[in-house]
Amino acid sequence: MGIRVAVAGASGYAGGELLRLLAGHPEFDLIAATAHSQAGQHVTSVHPHLTGLDLTLGSTDAETLGDADLVFLALPHGQSAAVAGKLAPTTRVVDLGADFRLESAEQWTRYYGGGHAGTWTYGLPELPGARAAIRDAARVANTGCYAATIILALAPLIAAGVADPEDVVVVASSGTSGAGRNAKVNLLASEIMGDLSPYKVGAHQHVAEIKQATGAASLSMTPILAPMPRGILATVTAKRRNGGDPREALQAAYADEPFIHVLPEGVWPHTAATSGSNSCHLQATVDVDSGRIIVVSALDNLGKGAAGQAVQNANIMFGLAETAGLSVFGVAP
Amino acid sequence: MGIRVAVAGASGYAGGELLRLLAGHPEFDLIAATAHSQAGQHVTSVHPHLTGLDLTLGSTDAETLGDADLVFLALPHGQSAAVAGKLAPTTRVVDLGADFRLESAEQWTRYYGGGHAGTWTYGLPELPGARAAIRDAARVANTGCYAATIILALAPLIAAGVADPEDVVVVASSGTSGAGRNAKVNLLASEIMGDLSPYKVGAHQHVAEIKQATGAASLSMTPILAPMPRGILATVTAKRRNGGDPREALQAAYADEPFIHVLPEGVWPHTAATSGSNSCHLQATVDVDSGRIIVVSALDNLGKGAAGQAVQNANIMFGLAETAGLSVFGVAP
Amino acid sequence: MGIRVAVAGASGYAGGELLRLLAGHPEFDLIAATAHSQAGQHVTSVHPHLTGLDLTLGSTDAETLGDADLVFLALPHGQSAAVAGKLAPTTRVVDLGADFRLESAEQWTRYYGGGHAGTWTYGLPELPGARAAIRDAARVANTGCYAATIILALAPLIAAGVADPEDVVVVASSGTSGAGRNAKVNLLASEIMGDLSPYKVGAHQHVAEIKQATGAASLSMTPILAPMPRGILATVTAKRRNGGDPREALQAAYADEPFIHVLPEGVWPHTAATSGSNSCHLQATVDVDSGRIIVVSALDNLGKGAAGQAVQNANIMFGLAETAGLSVFGVAP
Amino acid sequence: MGIRVAVAGASGYAGGELLRLLAGHPEFDLIAATAHSQAGQHVTSVHPHLTGLDLTLGSTDAETLGDADLVFLALPHGQSAAVAGKLAPTTRVVDLGADFRLESAEQWTRYYGGGHAGTWTYGLPELPGARAAIRDAARVANTGCYAATIILALAPLIAAGVADPEDVVVVASSGTSGAGRNAKVNLLASEIMGDLSPYKVGAHQHVAEIKQATGAASLSMTPILAPMPRGILATVTAKRRNGGDPREALQAAYADEPFIHVLPEGVWPHTAATSGSNSCHLQATVDVDSGRIIVVSALDNLGKGAAGQAVQNANIMFGLAETAGLSVFGVAP
Repeated sequence: MGIRVAVAGASGYAGGELLRLLAGHPEFDLIAATAHSQAGQHVTSVHPHLTGLDLTLGSTDAETLGDADLVFLALPHGQSAAVAGKLAPTTRVVDLGADFRLESAEQWTRYYGGGHAGTWTYGLPELPGARAAIRDAARVANTGCYAATIILALAPLIAAGVADPEDVVVVASSGTSGAGRNAKVNLLASEIMGDLSPYKVGAHQHVAEIKQATGAASLSMTPILAPMPRGILATVTAKRRNGGDPREALQAAYADEPFIHVLPEGVWPHTAATSGSNSCHLQATVDVDSGRIIVVSALDNLGKGAAGQAVQNANIMFGLAETAGLSVFGVAP
Repeated sequence: MGIRVAVAGASGYAGGELLRLLAGHPEFDLIAATAHSQAGQHVTSVHPHLTGLDLTLGSTDAETLGDADLVFLALPHGQSAAVAGKLAPTTRVVDLGADFRLESAEQWTRYYGGGHAGTWTYGLPELPGARAAIRDAARVANTGCYAATIILALAPLIAAGVADPEDVVVVASSGTSGAGRNAKVNLLASEIMGDLSPYKVGAHQHVAEIKQATGAASLSMTPILAPMPRGILATVTAKRRNGGDPREALQAAYADEPFIHVLPEGVWPHTAATSGSNSCHLQATVDVDSGRIIVVSALDNLGKGAAGQAVQNANIMFGLAETAGLSVFGVAP
Repeated sequence: MGIRVAVAGASGYAGGELLRLLAGHPEFDLIAATAHSQAGQHVTSVHPHLTGLDLTLGSTDAETLGDADLVFLALPHGQSAAVAGKLAPTTRVVDLGADFRLESAEQWTRYYGGGHAGTWTYGLPELPGARAAIRDAARVANTGCYAATIILALAPLIAAGVADPEDVVVVASSGTSGAGRNAKVNLLASEIMGDLSPYKVGAHQHVAEIKQATGAASLSMTPILAPMPRGILATVTAKRRNGGDPREALQAAYADEPFIHVLPEGVWPHTAATSGSNSCHLQATVDVDSGRIIVVSALDNLGKGAAGQAVQNANIMFGLAETAGLSVFGVAP
Repeated sequence: MGIRVAVAGASGYAGGELLRLLAGHPEFDLIAATAHSQAGQHVTSVHPHLTGLDLTLGSTDAETLGDADLVFLALPHGQSAAVAGKLAPTTRVVDLGADFRLESAEQWTRYYGGGHAGTWTYGLPELPGARAAIRDAARVANTGCYAATIILALAPLIAAGVADPEDVVVVASSGTSGAGRNAKVNLLASEIMGDLSPYKVGAHQHVAEIKQATGAASLSMTPILAPMPRGILATVTAKRRNGGDPREALQAAYADEPFIHVLPEGVWPHTAATSGSNSCHLQATVDVDSGRIIVVSALDNLGKGAAGQAVQNANIMFGLAETAGLSVFGVAP
């Protein structure tokens, strides 16, 4: 018998993607999935694309989740601590929410408000030293979707001394699934199709997470909602240091990574190529006019930005092949 | 070592989907892929979503394809006969084109024009008796994408005597990948987004194929291009016979099928739920005003409508599990 | 000073389109717009595309609406009677809702449930005799959006004896604004993009309205939600009578109409060409296989299907040029 | 009789939008429209949304264009000089192409290559002193679409000393009509829907135009193709100077402008609100982490970014109301 896994918060988009990945995973046995208002419903009435999966959503409680060796939390921000607290300390937990990502309680309060739940092992395997920490952790805080896109582009450049950590400028656009499955007027198809819409300009909560993981000293980030279901495209610019080559720095950092692809010279990432996959595509250049480094990063916010990342972390935690149950290939067109 | 497979015509959308499926297939080893004008290019310069697959496109000739145990043909209509003719008679071939689908040379000439290449085993496994024929065949003609969507909805109703074969009315909308990767002004994103556009009204070439496979005596079909990359939704209506229950007839026909799902009563198929999968979703009712049977059928035109179907046929031809390398779950949202 | 007009229910999509048209109308002076939960807000906080229009939304009551010579009602179904009852009998009213469209109380109860509010003059000017009735009416019930699309395609064919009124089959797809500005999960952009989704299959409430206006004896209609903000495309099929030519019948009916365009032979309507306009595009043929007549009709559900139609009716009621403030040209691409 | 106008290059998207605006203009009489390969066709076979406009496309020559008082050139880059040279010096010309925008021949050669055609009056009326120059000019070079979006956001901030002209960072996304009506694979709907795709990263030709018009000393600009037909959203960031308030600087600059709207505090521009209009929406803030100024600018690339701008310039050239034939309101949803 395989490793028993459960998903808490399975009715949202990240939860649905987790179910899809876990249903096809060679080592994980999906034994339970829970939801709040939709508990009691068959999973296919919530996720029709999972037709063929015979599972009824349970309540998010210890009784339903307690038999699992591994629990994924895909809950609204602020709810993870309470659910995790009910699980045995030996149960492995991967939290897709923000609650345990930040080390600094002060930064937590600044961007999220309220009390800081604590800090778990940060779950971005491609960061230096991260794999060993994840392997040994019972609790892992999955990277945020914007954060993952931007950190993967920026961290190696600052680490290699190629990019100046001061005055990093980021503009990043996300598909609508990143905003969650919330019945809000501004997320209606009529409002979104044909529209690009910035939000939280000048004060996005992922800034603290990105600075923590990359060593950036100051960073502005403008997030934009884009008319597509999935995908994040981040344009990350920084002042160049020491005449370094940003593309070479990326290649050096990711040469052995199965999911991080520095594209051939002159080829730029685009989101559709990563859709449905756990891959992140990267490219970099130096701007001819300003001399700034420009890195573009693309991934699937539900894949490498959420559920795929979570499964990758879980694979590491259980000593499985890191690519088990994950695809490097996008579903396109 | 596994079964050696090759794809001829790998630069189009169906070819790209075949490569994606074959790269993840547990038994098939992808040894070659060919193209016409893009021969010599690395596959990722044509299909960036396949980044991570190391393969260079070859020329569509016997030298490149000859070592394969199985060849998929995803060529423009009319080119399959010439390529198939160069292969050994024992090489298994699945043709995704129309060339060998029709039994009637007269119907071929009516809808396609020119000479009829011949007739291969018709590759829709869910039709009665089809699996045995496919298993024994060296050459299989894959179903057309519109045809698959409509045949799966209609065939069991006519066979069960529930639907009148006269005066079937079909309206079916397809995502744009069904129109191929052709640089035409009418397929530009600027023209398509926000637009529904009918074409070939009153005379679509799949009508002959649908009649042949279902026993429909007369059928009008209106195809519509829809602003989405993938998916076909067909509304199939027919006069009801003998007070039969169309939903029961569908359930009886597909009870044991892994990829054909008659949805719970009152739940209607929609295309996104099948995207990226090899599934077809079906539902039926009787119209309160006219008494007509209405069946709605949804699938992914590149999945069950093309590449997925082709892999399913190939699995049967080689005695593999029919679901090998295929997903019943869609990628949504 | 011009004719004073007010819009009740201005916070929805049809209401917003009315405001846009009225703000540019040469004879109507927009003096008030009302809303329910958003009363008290500036119109641009509800409709950012109307930036430049200085207007605060009022409450939907006699005090706010009473000074108008003409009131448009764009209210949820069932609310028009109460509001209209508070207006002076001489105030001209155009109701965009369904409440007063049907002549038959029995049909009302069958499709909408509850008590029938009554019957107002049916506001589709292109129907025979309609203009005179609209001119003399104080109260006009605007056509439904699906109904307008289908009636314009079908009525002349039945009237001319070219189409059989029995067994009409319609499949019609609508952009999402037709479903209103309602915060529902199934209308979220994440659910809609890439998706075609049928609903109310076999029992849509516009069937009664279409039969009443066209003389169709039995009619099945399958409505589909399409991934675009605006536009309806209807495929209307009927059995052919007397060998008549459906395209000629349409041309004869609409030769002098400014907004109804029978396209050149072989050219098929598509929705984007009518977006933002008050035009309806039509084409017809006879299916080669079944001999059925196929008519395709396209219009903007918020234009000729709602707000444009309403302004056209109002123009007639006040003896203005019928095209005043309306555009025959779409906004494309 | 009105002012006679002609459009050269009427078969593209900007040309089509010009025709739409001119057909509804109160003072301009559209007497001719020309095209290259589509000369001889009726305008509605090229632009079905203009059904109702009776006009046949002519050849782009002096015979067809010579009777006009005003000629709009919407030609591929590099062709304007030859056509303009055939017109009488007194004929007013507005060129929507890039040929005559740059003052510096060196910059021209750097970004466009080849010889510099010359410099015409730069046609962005909202720049200080621009209106007088446009009024007196026989030849006006319309602003580029990206350039208009960015210049309107940036010029007042540099002029007011609020933004540092060094190290300006811009990321701007455009709808697909900005890429023209070119039958290219990368512009196909199948490739674009669901995709964000950067291009010309680090070296876009509008950089020279933006620096010339704003006084920016160094500027990096990353353009991105977005899955929508129309609209540009630009995020413009610059280092802040002297503790100035960027929003106040924008308000001061545009207080009396009919088409430039600084939105209420906290409300951010989005593209759909400007679609079909000649408006530009602006908002600014100071980033909490980096202290950078962030300005977001939205407009319709075919409206204020091309055809609307051109009509606005022409209105000024002929002493008409600047808003004649133009809408401040967008067509939404």
